[in-house]
Amino acid sequence: MHASSPSGGNLFSGVAETLPEELFQPLLERPGVRVERILSRGHATPAGQWYDQSEDEWVLLLKGSAALEIEGEGKQRELLPGDYLLLPAHCRHRVTWTAAGEETIWLAIHLAAGSQ
Amino acid sequence: MHASSPSGGNLFSGVAETLPEELFQPLLERPGVRVERILSRGHATPAGQWYDQSEDEWVLLLKGSAALEIEGEGKQRELLPGDYLLLPAHCRHRVTWTAAGEETIWLAIHLAAGSQ
Repeated sequence: MHASSPSGGNLFSGVAETLPEELFQPLLERPGVRVERILSRGHATPAGQWYDQSEDEWVLLLKGSAALEIEGEGKQRELLPGDYLLLPAHCRHRVTWTAAGEETIWLAIHLAAGSQ
Repeated sequence: MHASSPSGGNLFSGVAETLPEELFQPLLERPGVRVERILSRGHATPAGQWYDQSEDEWVLLLKGSAALEIEGEGKQRELLPGDYLLLPAHCRHRVTWTAAGEETIWLAIHLAAGSQ
């Protein structure tokens, strides 16, 4: 078998100076799994809105900082570089803030649900 | 549906002072996908040995530094924080060095082959 060549990049590079919208950039996609880089700068989930996803999401904060609110938890969870979290499907959550003065870089792995 | 609670940690914490062996620590496992943290400190693949894996591996260097040799490539690939690489199944490779004075921390996603 002839294997194909490795391909890669750097998760800290190629970040635009301004980010009018949060950016979701696909890195890898396979059946049941999707890996993406997310770039935020001061973005937050609008008040009263929640993410309610049909897939599990494993999220890792690589740079910057952010806070997540999980429905039913009294206290926000502040995330710093290296912090990761498994958000089970239908665990309602929102991003309450991301750092305003620098970009926040996330790695997200979306996993097909129903396979736990 | 009642969703379970998020669970998490920090990829930079819980690193032992000494690492007699390279450490492979599972973070998440689902059908077709396995995520792990790898800790190295001066470790390398023994001379003449190659990894030849039946699964694709997406690898991200989070801290420290390392170099990979890909069979058939004349030049090693040096990896710094943020660098990622998709190593297709059966792409023979070896780690020629990892930083000796600090730990090198990797995130690896192993993906079932044959699904490209």
